[in-house]
Amino acid sequence: MDLKRLTADELVTELEAQLNRYDKYMQMGLSLDMTRGKPCPEQLKLSEPMLCDEILGDHTSESGTDCRNYGVLAGLPEARRFMGELLGVPGDNIICGGNSSLNMMYDTMCSFMLFGVSDDEEDRPWSESKERKFICPVPGYDRHFAITQLLGFKLIPVDIIPDGLDMDEVERIVKDDPSVKGIWSVPKYSNPTGYVYSDECIRRLARMECAAKDFRIFWDDAYTVHFINGEPAKQLSLFDECAKAGNPDRVIVFGSTSKITFPGAGISALAADKKTVDFLLSRIAKQTIGPDKLNQLRHVKFLKNVEGVVEHMKKHAVIMKPKFDAVEEVFENEFGSPLEGQLEWTKPEGGYFICCRTGDGMATEVLSMCKQCGVAFTPAGSTHPYKIDPTDSYVRIAPSYPDVPKIKSAVEIFCICVKIVLIKKLLEAKKEANNN
Amino acid sequence: MDLKRLTADELVTELEAQLNRYDKYMQMGLSLDMTRGKPCPEQLKLSEPMLCDEILGDHTSESGTDCRNYGVLAGLPEARRFMGELLGVPGDNIICGGNSSLNMMYDTMCSFMLFGVSDDEEDRPWSESKERKFICPVPGYDRHFAITQLLGFKLIPVDIIPDGLDMDEVERIVKDDPSVKGIWSVPKYSNPTGYVYSDECIRRLARMECAAKDFRIFWDDAYTVHFINGEPAKQLSLFDECAKAGNPDRVIVFGSTSKITFPGAGISALAADKKTVDFLLSRIAKQTIGPDKLNQLRHVKFLKNVEGVVEHMKKHAVIMKPKFDAVEEVFENEFGSPLEGQLEWTKPEGGYFICCRTGDGMATEVLSMCKQCGVAFTPAGSTHPYKIDPTDSYVRIAPSYPDVPKIKSAVEIFCICVKIVLIKKLLEAKKEANNN
Repeated sequence: MDLKRLTADELVTELEAQLNRYDKYMQMGLSLDMTRGKPCPEQLKLSEPMLCDEILGDHTSESGTDCRNYGVLAGLPEARRFMGELLGVPGDNIICGGNSSLNMMYDTMCSFMLFGVSDDEEDRPWSESKERKFICPVPGYDRHFAITQLLGFKLIPVDIIPDGLDMDEVERIVKDDPSVKGIWSVPKYSNPTGYVYSDECIRRLARMECAAKDFRIFWDDAYTVHFINGEPAKQLSLFDECAKAGNPDRVIVFGSTSKITFPGAGISALAADKKTVDFLLSRIAKQTIGPDKLNQLRHVKFLKNVEGVVEHMKKHAVIMKPKFDAVEEVFENEFGSPLEGQLEWTKPEGGYFICCRTGDGMATEVLSMCKQCGVAFTPAGSTHPYKIDPTDSYVRIAPSYPDVPKIKSAVEIFCICVKIVLIKKLLEAKKEANNN
Repeated sequence: MDLKRLTADELVTELEAQLNRYDKYMQMGLSLDMTRGKPCPEQLKLSEPMLCDEILGDHTSESGTDCRNYGVLAGLPEARRFMGELLGVPGDNIICGGNSSLNMMYDTMCSFMLFGVSDDEEDRPWSESKERKFICPVPGYDRHFAITQLLGFKLIPVDIIPDGLDMDEVERIVKDDPSVKGIWSVPKYSNPTGYVYSDECIRRLARMECAAKDFRIFWDDAYTVHFINGEPAKQLSLFDECAKAGNPDRVIVFGSTSKITFPGAGISALAADKKTVDFLLSRIAKQTIGPDKLNQLRHVKFLKNVEGVVEHMKKHAVIMKPKFDAVEEVFENEFGSPLEGQLEWTKPEGGYFICCRTGDGMATEVLSMCKQCGVAFTPAGSTHPYKIDPTDSYVRIAPSYPDVPKIKSAVEIFCICVKIVLIKKLLEAKKEANNN
């Protein structure tokens, strides 16, 4: 239903109907959490066999290293190879770490802040650059933005579009300003839109001219195998494209098994050109004696290789798809199809999120009404730098954790609130128009 | 045998005897590694029951948290309580982390570098202090020194003595120089001397007057329960003493289960006053979503509490004591008792190391001879800032990993090399004396 086509009387009737629905939900005393992209218990159960002690055998790696003891700074060779397969990069270019790729991003960023991007004399510590800036695709991932905000970067928003980034804008920003040190990206099933960067976008990122020689792309390939339909989307390798373009050190790829096995107890990895890997390892050598190799061994024994992962992810998809479908179904029931200025939403083929857009200036009020009704969504603004969405319209829906009936209730309540806020605005506008 | 009392002829005879022994060992083509404080396979076996899947139960913490999933930034409450018991600090003052306390030290140091020791306006980032300095007890732990060296601190050596630090010197250094930002310490069974800081030393550290308001003690309580005789040494709590002295934020305590369970797959913790814990957590909140809680759960279920740890450490002691005894036995056989300028050694009641002192200017040559004979020790100088021991006399012996016969061979070869180098020096000195 296109609410904008209704007359004032029709709007009043519709408002009353929606307020009635809202009141009914209010009386149910719900408590639904749609805030974070967190796997549900059924998903966690898929990886339980990984925790049996037999999987560790005699605790030795393929080269005979006792994984219980110290050492192996860059991670077990078989874990590096495994994470390399996942990220489309040779194992030698991989550093395999602990349970959090966010941690690897933060640490890499701190190294660049304290030491620069390499040991070359001209690569000064980023902290010495008083006016440092970082590009943040919007809508995007709040935890990325928070790291660069904490470290004193000015955050520059750039629109994300269905086939990737607004590359004209990115190229314009990086071309002449050496204080622009890098860009965040979630290239496949992006958080929160679910968009997949196109090959063209990836080529342009690899080739573009950057004023800062130490410009770096933090490429968070968090959802690379997290398809919900068919199989993982094919995507050009930015790592390869950067090498081809003569910019091999431009990209650092990050990934983890957090949403493949266990969010709290997975393994993580970064991939970069050899020079950057060696540089980072020289710092990591002072930071630790080595990662948890037993957990790396568990993962390799359980998942084996990228084919094993894809098979495993099909089981995740069986659980995830009905949840995405439930959101889509409610949206279709309530709005038919996406309508600009009323409610638009993305239809991802993977990842953990659906991104909605209400009319401008409505998201905060909508989510506040949802909260009063016992439904928590990621707060409005979270998808933007400094947690401020200038349009106040973007809402991230995270359907992974609740079960389908709860998702349907939550999204229905969300739709009701969107309608109520929208109708009130429309009525006010009509009133104002009449007064003039 | 006191070699210094021998005549020139006796020395020549003795040298020939020692060179014969050395040659015999040379022909054996040995390959012995005494370089690092690494538990041996028998020690690792003690914690194998921790890896069985039953120990994880239904994967939930005592408060019902699913340990497989995201969250719980400061670590599981029961893991914080457990590590608090171990470090003598309330659980609320603990941040429980991943598999490496070194990593927590490095991260804490980086936070202080980038943000200062608190969010207070006057606590400037340490990186802004151009002339920053850090006190390094010598002989001490190379990995500590390496962190502060990497981060651009000037390393100031202070002698460690049998009852702790040369506190007169420490107090003198910190009193007037605000660029002295802190001190490293391994307070119990210190690396490499095995010394235990006295209560008096601890009280003086807590109370001393520091020119730098942001002076911090990095208190690496790595061997707090690692006794080899009887039970753990009692030691005053620096955490408590700092609070009593009105300097609650002066100390950050670090510890781990690396040498209790598995060096590669233990859990770590830091302890500090509430203000520092909150400050560090506000940074860690940007760095990660949470530590590996499954591994924390394993540890708490397996070791239970400090009594459980002490019982467990008694089993370690049964394995470790004969190794320390073997070193002592060879030293006694070869030298009788410690002799200044020839060979001195410590007799630790715990920890992982024995510290030796050859005559001045001899350690490098002695260890180089050992290496040629197939025996690797921690390189000379490693116990000192910048890896330079100005006396070239300190040698760290790490007896934990090899078996007793190997330790005996390695230490015997070491003694032979000490004698050869010493006798050559004595003969040269006699020759020179004759020439004058």
